[in-house]
Amino acid sequence: MISKLVDKIVDTGAPIVVGLDPKLSFIPDRILNKSFGEKGENLEGAADAFWEFNKEIIDNIYDIVPAVKPQIAMYEELGIPGLITFKKTVDYAREKGLYVIGDIKRGDIGSTSESYAVGHLGGVEIGGKVFRGFEEDFATVNPYLGSDGVKPFISVCNKEDKGIFVLVKTSNPSSGEFQDRLIDGRPLYEHVGEQVEKWGLESMDGSYSNVGAVVGATYPEMGKILRDIMPHAYILVPGYGAQGGKGKDLVNFFNKDGLGAIVNSSRGIIAAWKSDNYKQFADGKVGEAARAAALDMKKDIADALK
Amino acid sequence: MISKLVDKIVDTGAPIVVGLDPKLSFIPDRILNKSFGEKGENLEGAADAFWEFNKEIIDNIYDIVPAVKPQIAMYEELGIPGLITFKKTVDYAREKGLYVIGDIKRGDIGSTSESYAVGHLGGVEIGGKVFRGFEEDFATVNPYLGSDGVKPFISVCNKEDKGIFVLVKTSNPSSGEFQDRLIDGRPLYEHVGEQVEKWGLESMDGSYSNVGAVVGATYPEMGKILRDIMPHAYILVPGYGAQGGKGKDLVNFFNKDGLGAIVNSSRGIIAAWKSDNYKQFADGKVGEAARAAALDMKKDIADALK
Repeated sequence: MISKLVDKIVDTGAPIVVGLDPKLSFIPDRILNKSFGEKGENLEGAADAFWEFNKEIIDNIYDIVPAVKPQIAMYEELGIPGLITFKKTVDYAREKGLYVIGDIKRGDIGSTSESYAVGHLGGVEIGGKVFRGFEEDFATVNPYLGSDGVKPFISVCNKEDKGIFVLVKTSNPSSGEFQDRLIDGRPLYEHVGEQVEKWGLESMDGSYSNVGAVVGATYPEMGKILRDIMPHAYILVPGYGAQGGKGKDLVNFFNKDGLGAIVNSSRGIIAAWKSDNYKQFADGKVGEAARAAALDMKKDIADALK
Repeated sequence: MISKLVDKIVDTGAPIVVGLDPKLSFIPDRILNKSFGEKGENLEGAADAFWEFNKEIIDNIYDIVPAVKPQIAMYEELGIPGLITFKKTVDYAREKGLYVIGDIKRGDIGSTSESYAVGHLGGVEIGGKVFRGFEEDFATVNPYLGSDGVKPFISVCNKEDKGIFVLVKTSNPSSGEFQDRLIDGRPLYEHVGEQVEKWGLESMDGSYSNVGAVVGATYPEMGKILRDIMPHAYILVPGYGAQGGKGKDLVNFFNKDGLGAIVNSSRGIIAAWKSDNYKQFADGKVGEAARAAALDMKKDIADALK
């Protein structure tokens, strides 16, 4: 799967993934009024507004970026109606030719991780037929439980041609609380990175592995070290834009050929219409603002990598 | 919330939580045939079978144990129909007076953890009213992202009188890969345990905190140390029974007053009807076997704590 994503990154010239992390405050009244009017001012209405909002964004960016990354928490917050929108969003993005990274950060003991892997990347056999619960192309995985919790995902990746990104060094301010603690003189995240590289050798696909890593844009120096420790891992880089990461911070995550990393932006793209930088779209032109912001981000990264 | 759970543990004399982790292989043909016949041999049929199976178990154990712990992965595996069964199971168990520990192992950057916390333990405000996506009493939380990822759950616990159990030392064989690594001479899980104790002081409720910990029954020596490090944390102990933990292994997790821990058993109870130990229920008497197994477990723990 990673080789397909790499091809699409090369085709679009955009090592960018758009984070589809809707919040009601990002959605213009035009959409809210319609959804609440039709479905009620309740979870169903909010979930419908998420769906309409996501569609406008996908329709405006699917030809210029390779992938989207819906954060399932935003949908889970709305319960079942929200998760129905998550599923519809995944399916719609894939129909449009986008690769979908399910930002689910799951991880559990072996048999339980297997259920997550099957539910998000694989299929469950019932009466001799295979049914797919959700159907992302990639999922993010939490490594705290060790190999037991990660390998069931790798098995499904190998069987179904899918991929994962394992949390190594996360973008949030308190990520260092445990991840930076020194073990044998080196931070925990380096040890996790070494494991990601080892796990990755079990699922190679071209120059890279289907087992990638999450490393936050907010920690570029650590990104440099991790890039070396995990030569076969594609790095999913959150934290660009709203969380503070800048184009020049991203250089360390890439290899010299301009590959090796894909950078996420969520709010900076999906809520661009509300930003002072895109005032021309302030009357709720969600999709056009998202497109402009994605193109600006593409240029920002390309300039930094020059 | 923890004080309510403690009261119910005392009332029932059973520091036991029944893990509602259904698999198709645990469900007798009687239920499968009915569900597949009515809903189709597909995700909807499988999810309906999970629901009928769970109901039989809940109906037979609600008066002898204080709590159930549905593992959301088993439901997520079946996509939306599965998650609808998860929600129905949570609601039904609470109607029967059981406390529900959502075994969701979520954890993300702050704003995202907030969405998970609101979705599972709180409510989202839409048009001035509050709607609840899922409505568990407790949730399990992964600590890898540090305080950022945990504190939004604690805020919701304080606002809504709910609780969490943070993963400290998990029950699986490879849990030591990262959790046992030494930091300043002590394993990572002890450092996480210390944080759990600190976080817990922000949400005290009687003698214990709404912030509890997960420590596997399979590591009793570590349980002893963690019991001391986290005097205010209730310990949720998975790994009893099918994973290898035994009654005598559990003593270390409890305080001298017989409180301080609640032990989970999933397969050992819900699939008891398939076990050689309960042959009298082998013709698919799921609920009666579950009740017998829960009572045997209660006795096993009581004997060990004598």
